[in-house]
Amino acid sequence: MSGNTLGKLFCVTSFGESHGPAIGCVVDGCPPGMALSEADIQGELDRRKPGTSRHVTQRRESDTVEILSGVFEGKTTGAPIALLIRNEDQRSKDYGNIAETFRPGHADYTYWHKYGIRDHRGGGRSSARETAVRVAAGAVAKKWLKERYGVEIRGYLSQLGPIEVPFKSWDDVGENLFFVADASYVPQLEEYMDALRKSGDSVGAKITVVAQGAPVGWGEPVYDRLDAEIGYAMMSINAVKGVEIGAGFDSVVQKGSEHGDELTPQGFLSNHAGGILGGISTGQDIVAHIAIKPTSSIRIPRNSINKSGEPVMVSTEGRHDPCVGIRATPIAEAMLALVLIDHALRHRAQNADVAVDTPRIPGSVEK
Amino acid sequence: MSGNTLGKLFCVTSFGESHGPAIGCVVDGCPPGMALSEADIQGELDRRKPGTSRHVTQRRESDTVEILSGVFEGKTTGAPIALLIRNEDQRSKDYGNIAETFRPGHADYTYWHKYGIRDHRGGGRSSARETAVRVAAGAVAKKWLKERYGVEIRGYLSQLGPIEVPFKSWDDVGENLFFVADASYVPQLEEYMDALRKSGDSVGAKITVVAQGAPVGWGEPVYDRLDAEIGYAMMSINAVKGVEIGAGFDSVVQKGSEHGDELTPQGFLSNHAGGILGGISTGQDIVAHIAIKPTSSIRIPRNSINKSGEPVMVSTEGRHDPCVGIRATPIAEAMLALVLIDHALRHRAQNADVAVDTPRIPGSVEK
Amino acid sequence: MSGNTLGKLFCVTSFGESHGPAIGCVVDGCPPGMALSEADIQGELDRRKPGTSRHVTQRRESDTVEILSGVFEGKTTGAPIALLIRNEDQRSKDYGNIAETFRPGHADYTYWHKYGIRDHRGGGRSSARETAVRVAAGAVAKKWLKERYGVEIRGYLSQLGPIEVPFKSWDDVGENLFFVADASYVPQLEEYMDALRKSGDSVGAKITVVAQGAPVGWGEPVYDRLDAEIGYAMMSINAVKGVEIGAGFDSVVQKGSEHGDELTPQGFLSNHAGGILGGISTGQDIVAHIAIKPTSSIRIPRNSINKSGEPVMVSTEGRHDPCVGIRATPIAEAMLALVLIDHALRHRAQNADVAVDTPRIPGSVEK
Amino acid sequence: MSGNTLGKLFCVTSFGESHGPAIGCVVDGCPPGMALSEADIQGELDRRKPGTSRHVTQRRESDTVEILSGVFEGKTTGAPIALLIRNEDQRSKDYGNIAETFRPGHADYTYWHKYGIRDHRGGGRSSARETAVRVAAGAVAKKWLKERYGVEIRGYLSQLGPIEVPFKSWDDVGENLFFVADASYVPQLEEYMDALRKSGDSVGAKITVVAQGAPVGWGEPVYDRLDAEIGYAMMSINAVKGVEIGAGFDSVVQKGSEHGDELTPQGFLSNHAGGILGGISTGQDIVAHIAIKPTSSIRIPRNSINKSGEPVMVSTEGRHDPCVGIRATPIAEAMLALVLIDHALRHRAQNADVAVDTPRIPGSVEK
Repeated sequence: MSGNTLGKLFCVTSFGESHGPAIGCVVDGCPPGMALSEADIQGELDRRKPGTSRHVTQRRESDTVEILSGVFEGKTTGAPIALLIRNEDQRSKDYGNIAETFRPGHADYTYWHKYGIRDHRGGGRSSARETAVRVAAGAVAKKWLKERYGVEIRGYLSQLGPIEVPFKSWDDVGENLFFVADASYVPQLEEYMDALRKSGDSVGAKITVVAQGAPVGWGEPVYDRLDAEIGYAMMSINAVKGVEIGAGFDSVVQKGSEHGDELTPQGFLSNHAGGILGGISTGQDIVAHIAIKPTSSIRIPRNSINKSGEPVMVSTEGRHDPCVGIRATPIAEAMLALVLIDHALRHRAQNADVAVDTPRIPGSVEK
Repeated sequence: MSGNTLGKLFCVTSFGESHGPAIGCVVDGCPPGMALSEADIQGELDRRKPGTSRHVTQRRESDTVEILSGVFEGKTTGAPIALLIRNEDQRSKDYGNIAETFRPGHADYTYWHKYGIRDHRGGGRSSARETAVRVAAGAVAKKWLKERYGVEIRGYLSQLGPIEVPFKSWDDVGENLFFVADASYVPQLEEYMDALRKSGDSVGAKITVVAQGAPVGWGEPVYDRLDAEIGYAMMSINAVKGVEIGAGFDSVVQKGSEHGDELTPQGFLSNHAGGILGGISTGQDIVAHIAIKPTSSIRIPRNSINKSGEPVMVSTEGRHDPCVGIRATPIAEAMLALVLIDHALRHRAQNADVAVDTPRIPGSVEK
Repeated sequence: MSGNTLGKLFCVTSFGESHGPAIGCVVDGCPPGMALSEADIQGELDRRKPGTSRHVTQRRESDTVEILSGVFEGKTTGAPIALLIRNEDQRSKDYGNIAETFRPGHADYTYWHKYGIRDHRGGGRSSARETAVRVAAGAVAKKWLKERYGVEIRGYLSQLGPIEVPFKSWDDVGENLFFVADASYVPQLEEYMDALRKSGDSVGAKITVVAQGAPVGWGEPVYDRLDAEIGYAMMSINAVKGVEIGAGFDSVVQKGSEHGDELTPQGFLSNHAGGILGGISTGQDIVAHIAIKPTSSIRIPRNSINKSGEPVMVSTEGRHDPCVGIRATPIAEAMLALVLIDHALRHRAQNADVAVDTPRIPGSVEK
Repeated sequence: MSGNTLGKLFCVTSFGESHGPAIGCVVDGCPPGMALSEADIQGELDRRKPGTSRHVTQRRESDTVEILSGVFEGKTTGAPIALLIRNEDQRSKDYGNIAETFRPGHADYTYWHKYGIRDHRGGGRSSARETAVRVAAGAVAKKWLKERYGVEIRGYLSQLGPIEVPFKSWDDVGENLFFVADASYVPQLEEYMDALRKSGDSVGAKITVVAQGAPVGWGEPVYDRLDAEIGYAMMSINAVKGVEIGAGFDSVVQKGSEHGDELTPQGFLSNHAGGILGGISTGQDIVAHIAIKPTSSIRIPRNSINKSGEPVMVSTEGRHDPCVGIRATPIAEAMLALVLIDHALRHRAQNADVAVDTPRIPGSVEK
């Protein structure tokens, strides 16, 4: 593949299949001297872990991470940090029937034709299980961004199928398994999910992620813009079909007099830009939204073909998330963290000596 | 910057400022033996060229391209192809007043703080003028994809501000300066644009690009997915704030039974995936939509600050597109072409020897 | 670091410290469909393994490799192949005394100042132990090159300290622990090594590696020439201080009429080029020589300084190779294999469609 | 090719053929704020220029460089710097006879089989003319290294064929066209070259390059070691067949007690390491030697084949350097500068925050 490394200076190389012995990654380029232990990473992994409620897959994985290298006496050394997560609950027999069949909406058909061989067990390499690795690597990035630059990266589920959940407070997010920013919506969401599960169907979702505290200057135009790299990172997550920065698709109908964020000595008066101008962070909140498609594995029978090209009906009975979006918030946060740390490092490589007299304005004006 | 190269095997390295002596690029990795002349590239450049109607910027640039290397006796040699476009109409004095001021919605503020120095003339490096280079490089990619794999890449303006223009036919696109796929909308669009220009304001737009004829197998998961690279490439275009693949944000409210495209021996029954599953092309049309923000340069006065951090009012009188989306279709096509050729090359590097008995289905079922 | 990945399409990302829990790597980009098992890799690892004779380090490591991913039902899938080797004999206490001292000729001083933290146990990341990883990854590359292109990669110790050992036959190499190509030299070498070990000193060596059967066309000028990449790969091996291609430094005194290899329809008449012209393989044997410095860890006391900058005497009593060159042949072979597979893949990406009528000459004329 | 970019953060992308309209490059990643004009670059180009004495090629090229971008009001902006050199003296007819023939020692045969097409005029892309581009890019790097870190990069011709020229002083180098460090050798060299030219033959050479003043810490192990990158960069120069760091191949016969450089509070007592330990600069002089093969273009007739595979005799009458080494010193310096600036930037990306109490020793002890 050779497409399994992300980042230019903070590089994450991912490996592992859903039902192989292990998944993991190598994080290369982490600055030395940062305190790091398995516990720092485990906390993030637990947020994404399967089996935590009836609304997500019942696969049982403790997702216990082991640091194999790059940490000495509790601190990063600057050497590559290898992270290993052994797979535990590999009920491969559940997947025997999919060896010969291409499931609609899955990567079965494309992997088969691309590689001529396919580890079909649980989706193999194309499984969302790989996203645990991203969360683990992202935890390292998050910690460094927080400690070195005070950057805080958080996300929430802003829409589940037809139910939009507006932002109320970050405190709410941590207290519910849907990652919604207004916990009062939880009963409505549970009711919706129960009906959905019963119907054997699945549904899409929308996630919003926000980085607060990033300084002016991250991003490398004209191609490696911060928004371009966020576009790449988010779209690389399984099931993501759309990415927006700031006003996103609302920009289409906006006028210039409405969209362009005015500057004052006290800060920007709005943030339609989503914290990025000309591909470079402005000091405002960096805001991205992603669209997550409905899970393709559903009980409702669907038309497909098998490896001989013959028509078949496919119905998936395994353990699946009826809405993958529910567990996706930590993944989106991780991807944003990975993009930001890479650009923090790239920025200081070239621009470490830049000194500007002009005062920086303090992000957005508080309202 | 070191962020000015795009692609891993078909690499485009861009250079040049809006009002410097020239813009251009080096295209490295083009397969040898393809017929190529300046005329092949000029045709695409002319589609993006300024000054072609009253609805776009009146800057006069012939955008004449010169091939400096990599072509011998009319054929590519496999060596880097350098493309040069001299700037002609550099009315820098128009921009004198912006040297000290940060225009809202522009990259002025971020460039200044990032680099400590800023070529303010016409936006310098952050100007949309750089997109001519992308179109030139994209023309090379497009030609190769067409000749080698029969891939056809086309786009159209699917929405201008509030006016959605549905797809009628590709023939219509070529016959109007708005690039809309239903030419009957042109009078309505002209009327809208005339009023907009008069008001001194600007507006956003939406572009749709489609690649037809790409085979199954392009894309390198898990990070360098075809959709991730499209996300990156599109978001790297000036003014783009959102990217969708296939159903995009509509996926959020879709059920799995609706979204997942069924397969039959005659082809896929729908294309919500936008031609990509698991990050790999399916053989269906590859479909992307992008949101383009309204031009930030408007006559309506807006709040901003100057280099001393003091409040100022900014009104832009120069020559600007009131809707940059109108000229953006060729750019979006070029970016899609650049992503596809890179992945065509990457795919055959690793998978040249793959042989699969399973029949490939013929893209989508014709309706 | 972010300098721990080698290769552009066949990418090896290495991790691990000498006395950490494990070393290993991720091999990304291996073509799918190749039979691969741990046994294929173990054979190569055993050739490099410590403790096989009294002339090498007595550290006891079985160097047992585990394949964690990328192989399904005995075949590579195109997904990343993670290889894990647990460290077993971590007698860290031997190294307690070096925590505070910079050993002459070692990386202690440079790591300390670069990273501000140093895993001193056995050299940590700078230990030659990491080369086991290269041999493991190289085994995958070697196998593919052999099976797909018939390329055979072999090496031998061509000089140990003052003793030059001319090439007699490849059969000899496999039958002695010095990897010399004339086994009749073994008694002389053993005698030399016994005296050396007794003296508490160490000595340098020279290795020659040869790839036979590579076709014309591998290498990507003008920078990523095949010889440039070999220069990089060889020089990246611990203790290597020089690299030659073909005639190497003998070229300095050669005349053009002597050096330039003449072509005939029956093949090249000589191979001073070492199988590479203009950075591209010629179809002849690819030949490289490397100089390996004497081990820095010796019993003879030497001047140095400690972390406080004070003068100290250092004498190393641990388990060390008195001539690291003795075990370096498999490493040099691995590095050559890794360069060649990467270029084999890169070549076919760009040039898969090239068809030339001119007959290829059969490498060198047999003498 | 996609092998025409060098560097990871300070990236040089080269283009152009010997007898095409122009050669040039894009330098991406130069820090902003450095004063830069064409004159800064021209000085270095003039040192490498052809036609300056009877001992080098008589091709007449003024090698005038034009800066197309990345510089504003005399200072670098952080945007890509495009450098253009128009070819002037393209006497292509001299080369008509080589269109059908593969010259021994040249890249003709390999380019033909790799690409299926070949710009034969003057060697096309494989011509040493491309090295002017490296010198131009290197001039930018050199200037920055000097101004920012006080690093001085210089080289000299240490051997011309059989004549070794020891180092006497840097002052001597600048005062003779052979770049030897003891000008008293010039008459002997001239006599040797006159005889050589008369004989219609050519000869090899050895160049030594030295960087003084680099701090401890540059280099990114375990693969992107400073010495590995120097190995790559030097070996990428046309005609280079060998690279040594410090003691180089002399290390083969050295004992550990001789080779390992002792440390004292006053500095290192020797520099066999060539200023690099564990792939990281030590603060001592960084020293590399390269072997340059004899020019392949000679008047003496030699055996070869033509494009039909038939035997022919080849004798080259064009304008050629009988010893390419004579003009190679500025090229080697440029390559060293390009490696160092890239690692200076990479180092501060990751390690900008490292603080170490241990005093740094002042390079080598002065003798």
